[in-house]
Amino acid sequence: MEWEKIKIRLDTLLSEGRHGLLRGALMVLNPVDVAEYMQDLDAEKLLLLFRVLPKDMSAEVFSYMDGDQRETLVNSIGDAEITALINDMFVDDAVDFLEELPANAVKRVLKNTDPKTRAIINQFLNYPDNSAGSLMTIEYCEVTKGMVVQDALKAIRETGVDKETVYTLYMVDDQRHLIGYIPLHKALLVDIDTPLYEMREPGIISVKTTDDQELVADLVRKYHLISIPVVDGEGRMVGIITSDDIMDVIEEENTEDFEKMAALAPADEPYFRTSLLEMVWNRLPWLMILMFTSILSAAIVSKYENLLAVSVLLSASIPMLMDTGGNCGQQASTLMVRGIALGEITFKDIFKVLWIEMRVGVIIGFVLAIVTYARLLFINHANPTLALVISFSLFATVVIAKSLGSVLPLLASKAKFDPALAASPLITTLVDAASLLILFSIASRLVIG
Amino acid sequence: MEWEKIKIRLDTLLSEGRHGLLRGALMVLNPVDVAEYMQDLDAEKLLLLFRVLPKDMSAEVFSYMDGDQRETLVNSIGDAEITALINDMFVDDAVDFLEELPANAVKRVLKNTDPKTRAIINQFLNYPDNSAGSLMTIEYCEVTKGMVVQDALKAIRETGVDKETVYTLYMVDDQRHLIGYIPLHKALLVDIDTPLYEMREPGIISVKTTDDQELVADLVRKYHLISIPVVDGEGRMVGIITSDDIMDVIEEENTEDFEKMAALAPADEPYFRTSLLEMVWNRLPWLMILMFTSILSAAIVSKYENLLAVSVLLSASIPMLMDTGGNCGQQASTLMVRGIALGEITFKDIFKVLWIEMRVGVIIGFVLAIVTYARLLFINHANPTLALVISFSLFATVVIAKSLGSVLPLLASKAKFDPALAASPLITTLVDAASLLILFSIASRLVIG
Repeated sequence: MEWEKIKIRLDTLLSEGRHGLLRGALMVLNPVDVAEYMQDLDAEKLLLLFRVLPKDMSAEVFSYMDGDQRETLVNSIGDAEITALINDMFVDDAVDFLEELPANAVKRVLKNTDPKTRAIINQFLNYPDNSAGSLMTIEYCEVTKGMVVQDALKAIRETGVDKETVYTLYMVDDQRHLIGYIPLHKALLVDIDTPLYEMREPGIISVKTTDDQELVADLVRKYHLISIPVVDGEGRMVGIITSDDIMDVIEEENTEDFEKMAALAPADEPYFRTSLLEMVWNRLPWLMILMFTSILSAAIVSKYENLLAVSVLLSASIPMLMDTGGNCGQQASTLMVRGIALGEITFKDIFKVLWIEMRVGVIIGFVLAIVTYARLLFINHANPTLALVISFSLFATVVIAKSLGSVLPLLASKAKFDPALAASPLITTLVDAASLLILFSIASRLVIG
Repeated sequence: MEWEKIKIRLDTLLSEGRHGLLRGALMVLNPVDVAEYMQDLDAEKLLLLFRVLPKDMSAEVFSYMDGDQRETLVNSIGDAEITALINDMFVDDAVDFLEELPANAVKRVLKNTDPKTRAIINQFLNYPDNSAGSLMTIEYCEVTKGMVVQDALKAIRETGVDKETVYTLYMVDDQRHLIGYIPLHKALLVDIDTPLYEMREPGIISVKTTDDQELVADLVRKYHLISIPVVDGEGRMVGIITSDDIMDVIEEENTEDFEKMAALAPADEPYFRTSLLEMVWNRLPWLMILMFTSILSAAIVSKYENLLAVSVLLSASIPMLMDTGGNCGQQASTLMVRGIALGEITFKDIFKVLWIEMRVGVIIGFVLAIVTYARLLFINHANPTLALVISFSLFATVVIAKSLGSVLPLLASKAKFDPALAASPLITTLVDAASLLILFSIASRLVIG
C-alpha cells in the first residue's frame, strides 16, 4: 500500500534528522494521517515531529492524536508552547483556568477544538455528558434581521471562521432568539444586496443544550442537515453541531446497542484502551444475572428427572431446543431494536408486529419441526410418540421465541427502558425456560403417562 | 406534541378543500415532514395535496415520500406532470428511456434525485449495487487550473446548483483528472482574484465508482469530510457523495451487522415493507444450519447417557453451562465485530486480543465458578466432587468461549469473510459442544471412574 511506503519515508527522514524535507513531506499529508503516523512514535520522536509540523497544521494534527500521545506531548513541551496550544486545544489542567475566563476568551479557546475535547470542556462548563451542549461548537456564523447577503459574506471574512461551520447562516433577533436560517449556497446565488430576512428558511429545526445526542443524531439524519443549531432553555442561540461529529455519535450509539444486546455494559474507551479490570467489570454483572436466571431452566430439568432416566433422547434434545429458541428470539428482537432505533417501529405497532411474528414463527416452527421429526424417526430411530413430543416442543418454542423476542423490546421502549437491554440474552433465558417446560410437561403426559 | 396539532390542522384544511390556506401551511413546513404527513393519505387526498404543494417544494417532497406513495402518485397524475417530475425525479418506467438519453440530459434528470432513486438510476447505468457509483450525485462544482475565486463563484451562480454539494470546489485538469480541491469557505476568506490553483489542498481523498459503500463511509467518517469525490477507472472525476447520504450508509451497514450477528439474512426493505415469505426466507436458512450443528451437542449428551442416569445434576447444569458459554462468546465476538468495523482492531492484533481475552476469561470464569460451587454445595447439597466438576467445566467454558469469540471474527476478517457472520450464533453452537464435552469427559472420569 501507498501509505505504508509513505510511513517508511517518514521514518527515514525522521531518524536521519532531515527536518526541512520532513516538513515538506508532512505538508502534503492529511492531518488525520499525520496523527495516525504519530501514534507509534516514542516521546522523543513525537516531540521532534510535532515541532517540525507547519504551524497551521499542528493544532489540527493535535486534535486528531489519541489521548495517550497527546498527554505525552503535553508533558514534554514547554509552558509557552502549551499556552499556544491552549488557544485551540484542550489540556486537562486548563479546564479550571478556562472556567474563570470571560465568555469571549472561552469562545476563543473552544475554537478549533476537536469534538472530544470540546465535549470535555463543555461538560466542565456544566453541560451533561452526551448532551447536545457537550457536542456543540460555538464557532458559527450568526446574522441579524437587518443584514443583506454582502454583510454576511463580510462577517465570514472578518471573523475568519475557517471551517465548514459557516455553511449555514443563523439569524437571531435582539434577544438572540433563533428566528431563521439561510443556507450559504442560496446566498451565493442571489444579488449581494438581497436582505437575508427575506431569504430565511421556514421551520427551524433546533435542539436544546440538554437534549440527548441520540435525538440530535436522529434529527440530523432525518432532515439531511449539515449542521443543527443548539439553543438554551430560553431559546437563545448558543452553538451548532456539525454533521461530521454526528457520524461519530451514530457509531457510538450503535456500539452501545451492540454491547447491550451482547450483555455488556457500554465501555467508555476503545477496546485496547480499556483496562483488564474494567473489561471484567463491564462483562461480569450481566453474566452473573443471566447465570442465575438460567438456574430456572435447571430447576425445570431437575423436576422431571424421572423422565430423563426413561429417555436419553430428551436430554439430548435440550441443546437443540435451547439453541433454536435462542436464535429465533434473537432474530426477532434484533429486528425490533433496529426498527426502533431507525424510527421504523414504535410501541403502537405492537399488535401488528406480534401478528407478523406469530405467523412467521408458525411457518418456521412448522418447517423445523417436520425436519426434526423426520431426523428423529429415520436417523435416531426414535419412538414415534417421543419424536412427536420433541418436534412439537420445537414448534412451540419457535412461536414463543418469536413472540417474546418481538414484544419485549417494544414493551421496554414504552417503559422508557433501552430496548437493546431487553433484547437477546434475557430473551434467550426466558425462551430456554419456556421451551424446557413445554418439552417436559408434554413428555410427562405422553411418554410416561 | 406540536406536530400532532399541525397534522390535525392539515387534515381539516384538506377535507374542507381550503387549498389556498393549505398551500400556505405547507410552505412553512419542512419537506421531510410534509412527506411524512402524506404517508397516511389515501390516493385521492395524496394527489390533491401534491397539486396544492408550491412548485418549488414538490420535487423535494416527492424525493422524501416512501416508495408505495410515490407509485400511487405516479399512477394518478397525468403524462405531462410525470414528464415535469422526471426532470428531477426517478420513475421506474423512465429508466430505459434514460439510458437512451445523451449524457447531459441524464445529468439534468439525475439532478435533485434522492439517494435511493439516484442509486437505482445509477445502477441501471451499470454501477454495481452498494458501490460508490450508485450513491453519487453528479451535481457538484468543478473548477479548472486557470480559474480564480471570482470565476468559481460565477460558476456556482451560473449553474445555479442549489445544494450543499457546492461547498467543495473540485479542480480537474484538461483530461478531467482530479488534481485538487478547495473548500468553499476558504475561497470566501481571500481576495476574489486569488488563483484557485494556489489554494488547492494537498492529499486528495477520493473513491472509485466501483468501491464499496462501506469504504466510502469509513473515509468520510475518518477524515471528517462533507463530501468525497468519485473518480472512474482512469482517475477522471465523475461525481461526489455527500455526507448526509453517508449517514444512511452507516446505518445500513450497522443494520447489516446486527442482522448477521442475529443469524438473519440482511433484508432489503424496512420491517413493515418485508413480506411474510421474505421474512421466513431471511431467517430459516441459518436456523436450519444452526439446528443441525446443535445436533453435535446432542451427540455428546447421548454418548454419556450412563452418566446422566447417575446424576440429574449434570443434566440440570446443561442449560446454565450453555447459556453462560453463549453469553461469554457473544460478549467477546461483539467487541471484535465493533472493533473491526470502527477500524480499532485488525487481524494483526490477534495474539494481543487473545492474550487479553484469555485473562479476562480466567478472572470471570473463576468468579462464576466459585459462585456456582458454593451454590451447588450449600443450596443444592451436591456431592463435592460433582460440584467441582460442574464448576470447573463452567470455568473452562468461559475461557474457551472468550478465546473462540475473539479469534473467530478476526480469522473471518482475514479470510475476507464478514466478521459479523462468524460472530454470535455460530460461536454459541461451538462453545456449547465444547462445554458439554468438557463437562462429560471430566465427569466420566471423576464421578463414575
